[in-house]
Amino acid sequence: MIMVLETKSEKIMKVANSRGFFYPSAEIYCAKAGFWTYGHLGTRVKQKWENLWRKTFLSLNPYYFEIDDCVIMPEDVFKASGHLEHFNDPLTECKKCHSRYRADELIEKSLKIEAQGLSEDALTKLIQDNKLLCPKCSAELTEVKMFNMMFKLKVGATGQDVMYLRPESAQSPYLAFKREHEALRRKMPMGLAVIGKAFRNEISPRQGFFRLREFTQAELQIFFDPDKIDECDNWDEVKDYELLLYLHNDKKINKVKCEEANKELKLPRFYLYHAAKIQQFYLDKLRIPKELFRLRELSEEERAFYNKIHFDIELNLESLGGFKEVAGLHYRGDHDIGGHQKGSKQKLEVVDENKRYIPHVLELSFGVDRNVWALMDVFYAEEKERTLFKFPPNVSPIDVAVFPLVKKEELPTIAKKLFTELNYEFKAFYDESGSIGRRYRRQDEIGTNYGITVDFDTMDNNKVTLRDRDSMKQVLVEVDKCKNILRELIKGNLKFEDAGESLK
Amino acid sequence: MIMVLETKSEKIMKVANSRGFFYPSAEIYCAKAGFWTYGHLGTRVKQKWENLWRKTFLSLNPYYFEIDDCVIMPEDVFKASGHLEHFNDPLTECKKCHSRYRADELIEKSLKIEAQGLSEDALTKLIQDNKLLCPKCSAELTEVKMFNMMFKLKVGATGQDVMYLRPESAQSPYLAFKREHEALRRKMPMGLAVIGKAFRNEISPRQGFFRLREFTQAELQIFFDPDKIDECDNWDEVKDYELLLYLHNDKKINKVKCEEANKELKLPRFYLYHAAKIQQFYLDKLRIPKELFRLRELSEEERAFYNKIHFDIELNLESLGGFKEVAGLHYRGDHDIGGHQKGSKQKLEVVDENKRYIPHVLELSFGVDRNVWALMDVFYAEEKERTLFKFPPNVSPIDVAVFPLVKKEELPTIAKKLFTELNYEFKAFYDESGSIGRRYRRQDEIGTNYGITVDFDTMDNNKVTLRDRDSMKQVLVEVDKCKNILRELIKGNLKFEDAGESLK
Repeated sequence: MIMVLETKSEKIMKVANSRGFFYPSAEIYCAKAGFWTYGHLGTRVKQKWENLWRKTFLSLNPYYFEIDDCVIMPEDVFKASGHLEHFNDPLTECKKCHSRYRADELIEKSLKIEAQGLSEDALTKLIQDNKLLCPKCSAELTEVKMFNMMFKLKVGATGQDVMYLRPESAQSPYLAFKREHEALRRKMPMGLAVIGKAFRNEISPRQGFFRLREFTQAELQIFFDPDKIDECDNWDEVKDYELLLYLHNDKKINKVKCEEANKELKLPRFYLYHAAKIQQFYLDKLRIPKELFRLRELSEEERAFYNKIHFDIELNLESLGGFKEVAGLHYRGDHDIGGHQKGSKQKLEVVDENKRYIPHVLELSFGVDRNVWALMDVFYAEEKERTLFKFPPNVSPIDVAVFPLVKKEELPTIAKKLFTELNYEFKAFYDESGSIGRRYRRQDEIGTNYGITVDFDTMDNNKVTLRDRDSMKQVLVEVDKCKNILRELIKGNLKFEDAGESLK
Repeated sequence: MIMVLETKSEKIMKVANSRGFFYPSAEIYCAKAGFWTYGHLGTRVKQKWENLWRKTFLSLNPYYFEIDDCVIMPEDVFKASGHLEHFNDPLTECKKCHSRYRADELIEKSLKIEAQGLSEDALTKLIQDNKLLCPKCSAELTEVKMFNMMFKLKVGATGQDVMYLRPESAQSPYLAFKREHEALRRKMPMGLAVIGKAFRNEISPRQGFFRLREFTQAELQIFFDPDKIDECDNWDEVKDYELLLYLHNDKKINKVKCEEANKELKLPRFYLYHAAKIQQFYLDKLRIPKELFRLRELSEEERAFYNKIHFDIELNLESLGGFKEVAGLHYRGDHDIGGHQKGSKQKLEVVDENKRYIPHVLELSFGVDRNVWALMDVFYAEEKERTLFKFPPNVSPIDVAVFPLVKKEELPTIAKKLFTELNYEFKAFYDESGSIGRRYRRQDEIGTNYGITVDFDTMDNNKVTLRDRDSMKQVLVEVDKCKNILRELIKGNLKFEDAGESLK
């Protein structure tokens, strides 16, 4: 007998596919790599994450707002942004079978060295010097050429209007800046957020949700006066807060107070404030264990030339074998507004407190799909008789499941009525088939926070059994109080033990 | 002096552009027709509409769920759906200057006759018989040819993988049906909703928001047993409800009870139930005046061949000169699941109560952008000294604005504190510059429901002035009670007159 040990990634994928979190897009046809559908459960997790993000980051300043833009954009936008020239992957082609490969990945796999970011010439030299051949047919490979990763579209009947799918949501706020700055009465700093799709023609999509061709970003672009980068209205809120910093010349996680990071590391206050808020989002709101979190500084070689300060937000994900980027905090200088001012020949500089300047940009950039995967990884748990997701209530797909103990007498009627009442305020799920134990397991498997069972006693005493997912403890509560109790439990205002009469 | 009378459409567009509801996408470059950006206010209206839609239609049945899919899909999907062959616009080209035109529109404009839906040959004949020439250079026009309206993409490095941007969100639930049917334990009927983007390469985008190249749809696809189309669990809820029906052989709006429509017009109960819920969504939740609403039956010539029953939901919009389609309710038969079963060679039929069948589809399809425009039209109002949007609270972009009467003493501090408290639960806006009258007008102009003013008395009595947008009435309320009062006002549980001490 052969024991097949599944990896954590395989286990998550299996639950995700079979229960309706996510599955390959258009899978009844031949699904293409890098495209995924969120099923009915995954859509809920994604939306809850997005709403939490919105609530957290848009409330930092009354002048942080959300906009919603097209994903198809004119060519001129990407001339100005640099994507047309620089947004490339290095490709090599087999001279015989014409298969194409990402040169850096081919080299990394064959020679076990880092090759990302190397020039065309350097990659070609490595292939030739090491006599690397086509992995399929062992013929020679061509010189390495850059391949633009944007999807091109022809718009209109003549086909002469070339447009592109945006490769990042960030361009939308840059294009809208002038209009919103006027509409918002020229207030600075001003933030414009977008939660939306972006598209990249990846040659080899891989790592599940970490390199997709169609993906969702949640980004906040903050426009501000560069002279005020070391000023922050709410500095007191964060100055004693300890950041978990992983500096590139140090290679370990240090706890550094914001005050200290400002003085010793010369990181500006406006940057540090937002770094602290991001860390709090992960640790306090999403309940990610501290030891799985770090803010990793990128070295000058790693970061884009226009990024003056760049830390990635990384989570240690067992399914992917280590720390992986889920977000980034980038001080992009005047690259964006300056670039579009030049490209569009429109005045994008502002006059603010009698000073004329090109706004600088601080970018908070989150990969939504990566974050959804990270939640699935971090909260996945195995116990003797069950697997479960220990999602906090603010990201679990279902808040409460309602069961009649059996399909007899009035039990289903009472349970359905309660379900309907609860489903208006919470996301509830009703299930009446199978043994009660099995129904609990099915809900644990998808991370439903609470279960309510209507039994024969309910008809007499109007009480139901409320069950907690993580502890599997049960208490008896009055039907009419279910809604209030759930609300307080979910808000964290009530301990489960105090929610009702305890049962054995 | 020349009096320029603006049309309602121009007036709405002007407010929308200058205040940040919406404006042409990428307008700092040469904006392309048919692409719009939602600004910070429009994004709020759109999201509120979407959330109301979600809450309304997903709560109709515990087995109606939302999914979230890719917009890029493989070619085979559109072979099976028929889009590759049939999703065309008729084009004619100038033989000299090579400008291209939609043949039906050119004919309609020149000959003042209806030409939509005519065949290539019929259109060519009309052009030739009437000697229609190029509107630009008066040269001859070519024969009419069909032009596919889907955007084509090349995916992967070789460029051999052809994919398309979905021209309707509906395909996503059809593709996900098999997987979700399994995940949801083979329950029927089952509904899958999508709120997402769709894309059409329109040759001549026009009518503002009514023919876009990139747009958002909110659609619910319900899969059910065709033998049960005249069954409906909640029939009692709607059987006496009066639908506002505009039948194609009658050409006027009739009030028809669902019961009567079922018996006399032979419309099935499952269809009528959803028609009633759509009408209630518009009249009761969105507060659209009854006289602006109708359910218009399409004749056999007007509707797609696979639609067995098809009513459009139309609103009478002054800005567009009459009744316009904002949604549709389509009984699509087995066209979709049958088509994909054939195309994908996967078993998509279900076994339900010992019967094997191909699920039929009832589609609720809403154009989100059209609905946003309709709200702007219906609720726009002009009064002697102001223009305003009389949005109901569930779609207004801002719930409450908070002002210090003047920028003196503690007034701004108190007002900012109140703003911050309110902004957590509501969407609040803070403004301290300009005269108080002007600040009220600015909020009226964007449809903010309530205004709160902190004045010198506030420092003594801890009371603020609360103002109602529509009536412009004011009452005095305690600072600490603002949150509860606003909550009850917005829910409609409290009359404004009873919200506090009345002022003159």
